[in-house]
Amino acid sequence: MKESIKVFAPATVANVVCGFDILGFAVNEPGDELLMKSATKPGVRIISIEGDEGKLPLDPQKNTVSASVISLLRHLRRDDVGLEISLTKKMPMGSGLGSSSASAVAGLFAANELLGSPLSKMELLPFAMEGEALACGHGHADNVAPALFGGFTLIKSYEPLEVIALPVPKLFCALLYPHVDVPTRDARQIIRSKVLLKDAVTQWGNIAGLVSALYTNDYGLLGRSLKDVIVEPIRSILIPEFDYMKAYAMENGALGFGISGSGPTVFSLYHSVDDAQKVLTSLQKHLADKGIKSNIYLSEINETGPTVI
Amino acid sequence: MKESIKVFAPATVANVVCGFDILGFAVNEPGDELLMKSATKPGVRIISIEGDEGKLPLDPQKNTVSASVISLLRHLRRDDVGLEISLTKKMPMGSGLGSSSASAVAGLFAANELLGSPLSKMELLPFAMEGEALACGHGHADNVAPALFGGFTLIKSYEPLEVIALPVPKLFCALLYPHVDVPTRDARQIIRSKVLLKDAVTQWGNIAGLVSALYTNDYGLLGRSLKDVIVEPIRSILIPEFDYMKAYAMENGALGFGISGSGPTVFSLYHSVDDAQKVLTSLQKHLADKGIKSNIYLSEINETGPTVI
Repeated sequence: MKESIKVFAPATVANVVCGFDILGFAVNEPGDELLMKSATKPGVRIISIEGDEGKLPLDPQKNTVSASVISLLRHLRRDDVGLEISLTKKMPMGSGLGSSSASAVAGLFAANELLGSPLSKMELLPFAMEGEALACGHGHADNVAPALFGGFTLIKSYEPLEVIALPVPKLFCALLYPHVDVPTRDARQIIRSKVLLKDAVTQWGNIAGLVSALYTNDYGLLGRSLKDVIVEPIRSILIPEFDYMKAYAMENGALGFGISGSGPTVFSLYHSVDDAQKVLTSLQKHLADKGIKSNIYLSEINETGPTVI
Repeated sequence: MKESIKVFAPATVANVVCGFDILGFAVNEPGDELLMKSATKPGVRIISIEGDEGKLPLDPQKNTVSASVISLLRHLRRDDVGLEISLTKKMPMGSGLGSSSASAVAGLFAANELLGSPLSKMELLPFAMEGEALACGHGHADNVAPALFGGFTLIKSYEPLEVIALPVPKLFCALLYPHVDVPTRDARQIIRSKVLLKDAVTQWGNIAGLVSALYTNDYGLLGRSLKDVIVEPIRSILIPEFDYMKAYAMENGALGFGISGSGPTVFSLYHSVDDAQKVLTSLQKHLADKGIKSNIYLSEINETGPTVI
């Protein structure tokens, strides 16, 4: 067994516009860094967490990262193993960027690597979902799957769980996190439990179009498919300046624009890195003028999932 | 201008399980045959219709075939042209097999060919939809598009109309038309106008999985995606022995089984032509034992749309 390993796990965009609850993708920035060291004393301990403003629990049973790893060790019948975790959050929490998924995936990937990779990524997925459930109250896979596999992932079904890796478009993803509070639970609660059949038909035309666009590299179709008539009209109310930001991005080179996860982060996709940078800079200034601080991130789609750094 | 042309246009399966209102495919059998002759007297006339049991109107303004062709000629400003149509229905009407679409496509394809192909198939589509609207009271494209283009077609959106040709699986399609009456209008009316969001999410996971399966030739995934939690549970009530037929087909080699269009025809897809034939024969006998007559058809997926014969 190796002494220690340092890994990166990516932030993720879930609920990709027309793909509510079933589609997510990973980005190269931001993400979490995690250092894991083997220890002689059995059990999983959290040594330090940086960048969380003291919000995350250090109790191994309550923290997403350690709880996922504890489940993994139990599954592998390795209660002899001792692991010490130092987590560096390099992304905002509660922002709609899959923060808890990135941490859980980082921990599981690191532990699996230290143990000589006994499980495949697909086999790690249920443990990451367990961690996600601890953090968010539901075990959805649309953040953990792309964080683990990289790229665009389709959660084809939950029962049984089936994840499909879709082709990855060569596009730049611009992320903007406005510093307003949209708890995941609230964002779920305002969604109606029933939708009009005609809207559902529009939505499944769009998701089918989006999947086709990914396989054929048809970025025009990709843009025309990135439309959400069901969730975005409701959730966007919680995000300041949403309509302005969307219109500005779409007029300045974005192929699509939407809410990342349950918000308040918004994402947009671009051919041109310059367009993406220009839009991010302008929107950050626009929000600042309204008295709203924000973080911005720009990267390509992440194709690898977690990596050793 | 040629003197005459004889064409075939295929029957189609619309509302393909999880693809309600957006997905259809064409089959090599059954279909319509149409003979069109140029005439010196301007205008479009129906000379004869066979196989319709006298149900279709001979009035050119009221018949789907001639009305579509009249619209086409008006668009092309060719009121000098005279055309005489002899239609041979080689498929049941009101059966959920896109009978009116096949006829409209046959007429438009024949007229366009006689006139030297002034329009592309994509340009012919609106005229076929107009004919479909005359027959069914709504201008849905999920029968006319596959009848016109062949293969699997996705109606990505209606406004604006966008049709996408998906890859065609090398499978056999078994069709069984039980002789019971399910008018399209009734079949639409029993569908609820609102659906549960969680069911809609399941459905768009399935349609996304199906599209992915078509691009990757993953027939296992194709089978797992051919599920409908929204429309089939309601519409299948109108089809005698539906649950029995579905279970029997799925246990005997079918990758998927569902209602064709708004029924009462049911379709199923197979790797093996022998499995398909065996299932069709058994189900036909099963229905006969219950006192229900049926037609059965077996063919590969049609890849061409209408053809000159």
